[in-house]
Amino acid sequence: MLRLTPPNFARLEQATSFDVVFGGGEANVAISLAHFGVPSAHVTRFPDNAIGRRATRYLREHGLDASVVLHGGQRIGVYFLEMGAALRASQIVYDRYNSAFSEIKPGMVDWESVLHGASWFHWAGITPALSQGAADVCLEAVRMAKKLGLTVSADIFYRSNLWQYGKTPQEILPELTRYTDLVVASPDAIQLIFGIENDSFPQACERLKKQFPTIRYVVDTHRTSVSASHNDLKGILWNGEAVLESDTFTIDPIIDRIGGGDAFIAGLIYGLMTFEDEQKTLNFATAASALKHTIPGDANLVSIAEVEAVMSGDVGGRLRR
Amino acid sequence: MLRLTPPNFARLEQATSFDVVFGGGEANVAISLAHFGVPSAHVTRFPDNAIGRRATRYLREHGLDASVVLHGGQRIGVYFLEMGAALRASQIVYDRYNSAFSEIKPGMVDWESVLHGASWFHWAGITPALSQGAADVCLEAVRMAKKLGLTVSADIFYRSNLWQYGKTPQEILPELTRYTDLVVASPDAIQLIFGIENDSFPQACERLKKQFPTIRYVVDTHRTSVSASHNDLKGILWNGEAVLESDTFTIDPIIDRIGGGDAFIAGLIYGLMTFEDEQKTLNFATAASALKHTIPGDANLVSIAEVEAVMSGDVGGRLRR
Amino acid sequence: MLRLTPPNFARLEQATSFDVVFGGGEANVAISLAHFGVPSAHVTRFPDNAIGRRATRYLREHGLDASVVLHGGQRIGVYFLEMGAALRASQIVYDRYNSAFSEIKPGMVDWESVLHGASWFHWAGITPALSQGAADVCLEAVRMAKKLGLTVSADIFYRSNLWQYGKTPQEILPELTRYTDLVVASPDAIQLIFGIENDSFPQACERLKKQFPTIRYVVDTHRTSVSASHNDLKGILWNGEAVLESDTFTIDPIIDRIGGGDAFIAGLIYGLMTFEDEQKTLNFATAASALKHTIPGDANLVSIAEVEAVMSGDVGGRLRR
Amino acid sequence: MLRLTPPNFARLEQATSFDVVFGGGEANVAISLAHFGVPSAHVTRFPDNAIGRRATRYLREHGLDASVVLHGGQRIGVYFLEMGAALRASQIVYDRYNSAFSEIKPGMVDWESVLHGASWFHWAGITPALSQGAADVCLEAVRMAKKLGLTVSADIFYRSNLWQYGKTPQEILPELTRYTDLVVASPDAIQLIFGIENDSFPQACERLKKQFPTIRYVVDTHRTSVSASHNDLKGILWNGEAVLESDTFTIDPIIDRIGGGDAFIAGLIYGLMTFEDEQKTLNFATAASALKHTIPGDANLVSIAEVEAVMSGDVGGRLRR
Amino acid sequence: MLRLTPPNFARLEQATSFDVVFGGGEANVAISLAHFGVPSAHVTRFPDNAIGRRATRYLREHGLDASVVLHGGQRIGVYFLEMGAALRASQIVYDRYNSAFSEIKPGMVDWESVLHGASWFHWAGITPALSQGAADVCLEAVRMAKKLGLTVSADIFYRSNLWQYGKTPQEILPELTRYTDLVVASPDAIQLIFGIENDSFPQACERLKKQFPTIRYVVDTHRTSVSASHNDLKGILWNGEAVLESDTFTIDPIIDRIGGGDAFIAGLIYGLMTFEDEQKTLNFATAASALKHTIPGDANLVSIAEVEAVMSGDVGGRLRR
Amino acid sequence: MLRLTPPNFARLEQATSFDVVFGGGEANVAISLAHFGVPSAHVTRFPDNAIGRRATRYLREHGLDASVVLHGGQRIGVYFLEMGAALRASQIVYDRYNSAFSEIKPGMVDWESVLHGASWFHWAGITPALSQGAADVCLEAVRMAKKLGLTVSADIFYRSNLWQYGKTPQEILPELTRYTDLVVASPDAIQLIFGIENDSFPQACERLKKQFPTIRYVVDTHRTSVSASHNDLKGILWNGEAVLESDTFTIDPIIDRIGGGDAFIAGLIYGLMTFEDEQKTLNFATAASALKHTIPGDANLVSIAEVEAVMSGDVGGRLRR
Repeated sequence: MLRLTPPNFARLEQATSFDVVFGGGEANVAISLAHFGVPSAHVTRFPDNAIGRRATRYLREHGLDASVVLHGGQRIGVYFLEMGAALRASQIVYDRYNSAFSEIKPGMVDWESVLHGASWFHWAGITPALSQGAADVCLEAVRMAKKLGLTVSADIFYRSNLWQYGKTPQEILPELTRYTDLVVASPDAIQLIFGIENDSFPQACERLKKQFPTIRYVVDTHRTSVSASHNDLKGILWNGEAVLESDTFTIDPIIDRIGGGDAFIAGLIYGLMTFEDEQKTLNFATAASALKHTIPGDANLVSIAEVEAVMSGDVGGRLRR
Repeated sequence: MLRLTPPNFARLEQATSFDVVFGGGEANVAISLAHFGVPSAHVTRFPDNAIGRRATRYLREHGLDASVVLHGGQRIGVYFLEMGAALRASQIVYDRYNSAFSEIKPGMVDWESVLHGASWFHWAGITPALSQGAADVCLEAVRMAKKLGLTVSADIFYRSNLWQYGKTPQEILPELTRYTDLVVASPDAIQLIFGIENDSFPQACERLKKQFPTIRYVVDTHRTSVSASHNDLKGILWNGEAVLESDTFTIDPIIDRIGGGDAFIAGLIYGLMTFEDEQKTLNFATAASALKHTIPGDANLVSIAEVEAVMSGDVGGRLRR
Repeated sequence: MLRLTPPNFARLEQATSFDVVFGGGEANVAISLAHFGVPSAHVTRFPDNAIGRRATRYLREHGLDASVVLHGGQRIGVYFLEMGAALRASQIVYDRYNSAFSEIKPGMVDWESVLHGASWFHWAGITPALSQGAADVCLEAVRMAKKLGLTVSADIFYRSNLWQYGKTPQEILPELTRYTDLVVASPDAIQLIFGIENDSFPQACERLKKQFPTIRYVVDTHRTSVSASHNDLKGILWNGEAVLESDTFTIDPIIDRIGGGDAFIAGLIYGLMTFEDEQKTLNFATAASALKHTIPGDANLVSIAEVEAVMSGDVGGRLRR
Repeated sequence: MLRLTPPNFARLEQATSFDVVFGGGEANVAISLAHFGVPSAHVTRFPDNAIGRRATRYLREHGLDASVVLHGGQRIGVYFLEMGAALRASQIVYDRYNSAFSEIKPGMVDWESVLHGASWFHWAGITPALSQGAADVCLEAVRMAKKLGLTVSADIFYRSNLWQYGKTPQEILPELTRYTDLVVASPDAIQLIFGIENDSFPQACERLKKQFPTIRYVVDTHRTSVSASHNDLKGILWNGEAVLESDTFTIDPIIDRIGGGDAFIAGLIYGLMTFEDEQKTLNFATAASALKHTIPGDANLVSIAEVEAVMSGDVGGRLRR
Repeated sequence: MLRLTPPNFARLEQATSFDVVFGGGEANVAISLAHFGVPSAHVTRFPDNAIGRRATRYLREHGLDASVVLHGGQRIGVYFLEMGAALRASQIVYDRYNSAFSEIKPGMVDWESVLHGASWFHWAGITPALSQGAADVCLEAVRMAKKLGLTVSADIFYRSNLWQYGKTPQEILPELTRYTDLVVASPDAIQLIFGIENDSFPQACERLKKQFPTIRYVVDTHRTSVSASHNDLKGILWNGEAVLESDTFTIDPIIDRIGGGDAFIAGLIYGLMTFEDEQKTLNFATAASALKHTIPGDANLVSIAEVEAVMSGDVGGRLRR
Repeated sequence: MLRLTPPNFARLEQATSFDVVFGGGEANVAISLAHFGVPSAHVTRFPDNAIGRRATRYLREHGLDASVVLHGGQRIGVYFLEMGAALRASQIVYDRYNSAFSEIKPGMVDWESVLHGASWFHWAGITPALSQGAADVCLEAVRMAKKLGLTVSADIFYRSNLWQYGKTPQEILPELTRYTDLVVASPDAIQLIFGIENDSFPQACERLKKQFPTIRYVVDTHRTSVSASHNDLKGILWNGEAVLESDTFTIDPIIDRIGGGDAFIAGLIYGLMTFEDEQKTLNFATAASALKHTIPGDANLVSIAEVEAVMSGDVGGRLRR
């Protein structure tokens, strides 16, 4: 999606210019992984015009393989972001219907070829919410991913107002979850989407795994919102046996409120691919997520070394020469 | 429509920020008239969100009565403008389908109340091209305008690729033209839309009037495009008897390529409302149109005195203190 | 007044560009009310030149009725604002003498017509400080306001260095206060302006009311300035019987230091016009004032719903989608 | 004066920011001379506040000796500049009354000390137009300059609307001219100010010299204004015997319309101080003036070598590496 | 090289900010080819720091394969560009010594692997001017290119002041030219570098080919510099038999003076790879070069269709919707 | 050095523009002193090109005497600054080798003339780290300074990676320290550079003085880095007898992380030159340092009155009108 933000904390109502970046859950995850040195690609669909070329350029400049982008359709989704501060919240106005990507159809992507040689596939719950075509293509993807032996992760969240093409998350998400190894979800989302009543995060996780035995990890973040400019962040991870908690990281001030969740997921994927240690992985992911909020734009442009420093307690921001 | 332009002649592909203005044929005409001191209103429909409020603010700051704006729908149309220079043309990428305005329906506007006390109504051919609803509402408007004794003008141009809701301009525009006093149209447009074959502008005009006897004026502009930065402009007007030609005005450099036609129409409306002299009116309109191209944005923010100075040959741009 | 601010916390001494907004106590109050949906007008006087047109445009874009603006005079007042941060204070350099408004004279405004249909009139103590003419016009206004049954509020503060035309606040403000229902004033101001010695806010209020029986409310704000970037804000209101205190709101960081008092007054006016509940009114006004400091410019561009959310404790700035 | 210009050819009415430079006839001349390597100082008066410090900084950064600046008064004069293009003229809105400089009084400047060691003094006709004090101080200066043997130049132009303190240019300028060696003036100005009727530039010059025998040179420029973006420039100089004409230089596009006359004068002063050759001096001055219009701001930031290249016909602007 | 340009035609001396792009002959050629759809890579060496990452990002966003970039060294070359206008020339200040690329050494690039599958190799005369290492690596490259059957082109120009490591162009360039098929060079350069006296372009070409029989094409451009803002451009090509001339293209105004030569070369390479017709190739290349000057930055971000339109005479810049 | 900073907290990797200021330890100290009203000069060497002129302009605009700047060499040192926030540190990428200043040689500066009439000389440990020439010139300077009776201060810090010309700080700094009265150094630096083992700051100071009897003061700052946006600052000063500590000042948020140490030194120099009271001097210096971090750029543009207010506890940043 094209993200348009008035500079200097202006309200959308005041905008005389917009800063231009692009974003979207899966793209953000992929870009962060690319910055960790993991070769990454982003499958999407852009209109075959100058705005589509601008978007492609964004993917390429952030190190993604853009050769798998499809071209067609009329428009790219847009979101307008108002940067909040102190007790004024950041706000998003979406304009994303009828995007080129939402008009994707099964068969358009040659998933076997796209996923060839890959080890991980990630999808976000927003994708199957867009259209039947997007849901179908997502299902194509996870089936092929599993067939080819990839690990599959999903960021499952529930925003009922997104689902406007006649299906509910309850009808679509369970089938997709059947092919998924790592799920990002809160206990509330688990209850709402899968109908799994629960009193606690571990209980929700256990019951979820009973229903979807492929799941190995369920993760979530706890965000304490002191103000729009000051959040505290903690990650939690259920590994089938226990719930691990990360350190809590303070972000004050927040430079960009968007993309923390995607940075967290990228950190998890990198950690699980790299470290033996699940606790280290969780700390790495949470530190990465905290760092994201100090960077303008949707994507987390940090190195492994930078995340590891924060993870190790180097949060004082001492000048580096 | 929200207009997004990368500054400093950057290509859309290079955009890292967009300048924000708004535009649209009828709004541009109304704003120019407001700057001539003519109380003007713009009937449109904006989504009930921060972007809609931004657009309303635009209308108000340019002196329009925004109390007649409807609120509803999902989005506002967008167009991306790349500023050309020298031998690189300015280019527009439209993203305007499913706009709040295109979803307007008959009955939403209380035309009797809106037009009460007004003396002129203007519509552009783009409006009935958007949707059946927009075409129907346009017809409501011109019928009520005629009933209430307003003069009606129309900017009829032919872009077949705009008409995507199943109707053709040939099916819709003639009925609207039946209520119209002043038509902006080229001989080609007259042939394509109304099927009126013609060898010359006066012939086209005469034959058009035979078919649509309400028409009193047909006007057009001749634009010589030396380069994207240098155009020469001449207006022509058929008054039922003869073709008048304006002086030719040189615009070099062009600061903003958009809105020249709308500025021309506003100049015509002002002139016909004010001057006795049709030749003076045509010169005024053409000078206004030329001045428009020196002003950033869609709208012509000039005073009567400024147009009259240019019209009188003061085109040397001598510093005013 | 034209407000000129160097961007990005630069000192005035460093300025290579200025951001342009406009401001002034009464205008700020009116704009905030317009954003609460209350039809509002601002009576002022601008020079009849491009800067005056720019200022008029500002009023209109913020939703005010600008038809009551007078045109004449040489200049508009200017103030230069340096944005402070941390332990460096924000600073204002005024350049406001000989403004078109300060040259206003009795009889220039047809107050009967301007106030026709209105229910509230607000004036600020800065106005009668500018010139004898401004003081006289202010008196014209409050007399007509009272005659027509409007509620009158006043922001009475004491800056002795403003009064440079030969009169003192002690000579002018009491007569104006005789027509006023709601006074914004600190105990110190009450002592200095009206010579009312007092030991406490309620005592000052009671004694003030004895002298000016029309007064129904006296209000003030307590601002704890932790730093130029972090203030805590509490409102207090004396209703003739008791002193109510609002919740305390933390603003950290402050995006714009200006206009908090005007936003507070607009909140009071809206609350007293709308709510039955004085405590709710006070909380609303204080929350509105706190929100103001998160918005660039002089004026408080927030909706009722946004203020009510903060008032209800939703101060964590959670992202809104 | 503080000069405020909306960027990118926006009208003043559209301004959301202003670019900040400073300007004024004598300052512009001095800065250009400083860039030619001539030690130069600018005598003026700034308020003792942050805006005065900003102005002082401007003088210093452009290489002037700012130690002779007086501090006091309330404000600095301001002018708003709208950049024109093509057939829209550049426009200035002045806001310069009651400036710190206009309140200067005889005795404030120790001219003997200031002019000690200098060889040239320049004044502009705008200065004695501001106030009786400014006229008196100007007279102090030229008398001391003559006493100390300096050459004196003056840019005498006639804008009657500037003279608002009760005196006319006809009352004030002749006495100042009595101490002047080089006068920049058009035949019209010579007639209007000195009452010297004339049919031609040489006739005007001869008659002027009869009245003011100190005058050695009278100079003027001929500017052909093809458009606000394209001017052609020629200098003319009367040396007591003949009228010399410079080459004509084409400026297309004009980057900044202001300061061409001051750059011309600086070129004359430098040339007369340096070259034996009056024709060369005139060409140098005119080439300098043309170059000025390619540079943003009031002042001509070019080197001697750059002027000499243009003067020698190198006007094609070939890339320099 | 990192290119730093003050915006809005400011002089370098005035700069308060720099626009950031990157450039360099071979990179510019490769990027233009990538925009024509030709897969392209750029072999260079960047420091392993954030500025090196910024440069890599530039290559990637413009569609180049950046996997062949070497990492090491201390710095990237910098050039400061002042944008000229009218009779003020654009100017470059170089700061490029000791760049990471200039410290490249033979053996660092695995040319066999890099050139595998490629059909064309291009080098610029600036490269062997930097250091012995760069000259050696260039020689490695052209030898391997010839061995693998690639076509080799070279932009040979003579700036003697570049050669500061102890060798002269006369010592180095001839050996490199022995492996080259297409040479961009003026008759003067041919005389200076190769000692080939000549009276005309065809004579120079013929004599050059006698000495370097691999050469199939010699090309040059004729640039008429009316001003820094207005150039006319014509390409010429010697194909071993005759000299072809392209149409002349007018660029007015020039948006960016840099990169025209590289765009010309990219057009030649594309044309020779694609068209049968040498005249068409030359027109294509010259039109591409003219278009380049309308685009901010070093690189020519145009499509084949855009070049073909200009080549076919569509130079009037008519608005495209 | 030329300092290049991407605006709005962007990472260097994201930069599309750089803000331009200049900096360097000694220049920063001199500029701060100039803002305290102390006539100051900065001895350095700039290339004789437009970038050198830009740098000279920077010195002049900040009130320094630039007549002592030498001209020559190829380039000016550059540093790229990434502004950090919250838990992301600010980062510097240096590009300063082969600068014009580093190529300075003994005899180039006429120190007797430069130091004539001065009372204080300050040098920073970075200077002798650059080259043998710079070290030699620094030694020339301190010897002449002592000979002429100036007080000498030094900011001695240890960054071993700076010393790349074959000498170590241990070889060079002791000789320079022999002529120094005030040393800014941490206990660690004292141990590393002078081989003086120590357990505490006073012990380090006493032992240092034994070795260098000219030393009268050793000072240091304690910086608590809560985050990149929030630091607490305390100064300590050993006066030969005791260690004094300043108050602790909180800076939240930090607007510019650079230059705090230089501002501290300027405050010390001013205090020791002005106040009798060493404690007051230390508080003044630390308050000045804290204020520096609220100002964009390297230099501390504050007045004595502003520092004294903060020093006296006025840290709440109350709006000044």
